[in-house]
Amino acid sequence: MRKQILAASAITLTLLANAAAAQAKPEDVIKYRQSVYKVIGWNFGPMAAMVKGEKPFDKEAFARNAMIVSQMAPLAMEGFAAGSDKGADTKAKPEIWTKSADFKEKMDKMVAETGKLATVARAGSFDEIKKQFGTTGGTCKACHDDFKNK
Amino acid sequence: MRKQILAASAITLTLLANAAAAQAKPEDVIKYRQSVYKVIGWNFGPMAAMVKGEKPFDKEAFARNAMIVSQMAPLAMEGFAAGSDKGADTKAKPEIWTKSADFKEKMDKMVAETGKLATVARAGSFDEIKKQFGTTGGTCKACHDDFKNK
Repeated sequence: MRKQILAASAITLTLLANAAAAQAKPEDVIKYRQSVYKVIGWNFGPMAAMVKGEKPFDKEAFARNAMIVSQMAPLAMEGFAAGSDKGADTKAKPEIWTKSADFKEKMDKMVAETGKLATVARAGSFDEIKKQFGTTGGTCKACHDDFKNK
Repeated sequence: MRKQILAASAITLTLLANAAAAQAKPEDVIKYRQSVYKVIGWNFGPMAAMVKGEKPFDKEAFARNAMIVSQMAPLAMEGFAAGSDKGADTKAKPEIWTKSADFKEKMDKMVAETGKLATVARAGSFDEIKKQFGTTGGTCKACHDDFKNK
């Protein structure tokens, strides 16, 4: 049942995404997705610095960064609408659209793990947070490795 | 009590924002704030089209757009850190930093009204949604009129 709801929800989101992106120009879609990742990176950076011990661990700040990343992550997918493979400078590889099932699976994992990070960041110990941060970062890397040019 | 909590929360957010932005280069801060507004605009556009009758009203889609805007709105302020008045192409007027109390007041109003829009979008009638959309848009315009170059 939960799986069915999740699947239905994923379909709805995809439809919504397509509807929104259908009217946008490719360069606008590209700028949109880059904006989403910019805000994710802006919030990911301070968490990475805290996990690495490069800046002091501030639980409240970390939890806020994690919450924002978890809110932004589900917004990325609609930035990869059909036809947005070119039209402006982009590091997106063509495989995003030719291997779209694999891409979507990796994106879904990233979204799920950012959600877990937001939860752990509120209630977990530093060790638990650190572990989940690593797992979450791994799902970012998995997608970058396959679908993003350097 | 509620006011005190809100005030304390506002101070905390400002401190967090300053902490995050303190280490960022001006051009990076500018790109960050433009990214926040890009995502806001991406979600504001379809709502405006629905309110104007340019596209059919889809309550679920509208509520999602409104929720995203309400999540993005509180992220804008840290994109106006001291020193980010120049460093990259920007339409931000110097008054943002010279009349910062007025700017902050207008930003706070915008954040509050986007929150109300997200609530009304879930439970309100089309007329209520339309009214609150107008109020919210007014708070965007108030800031653009005073603090943004054309």
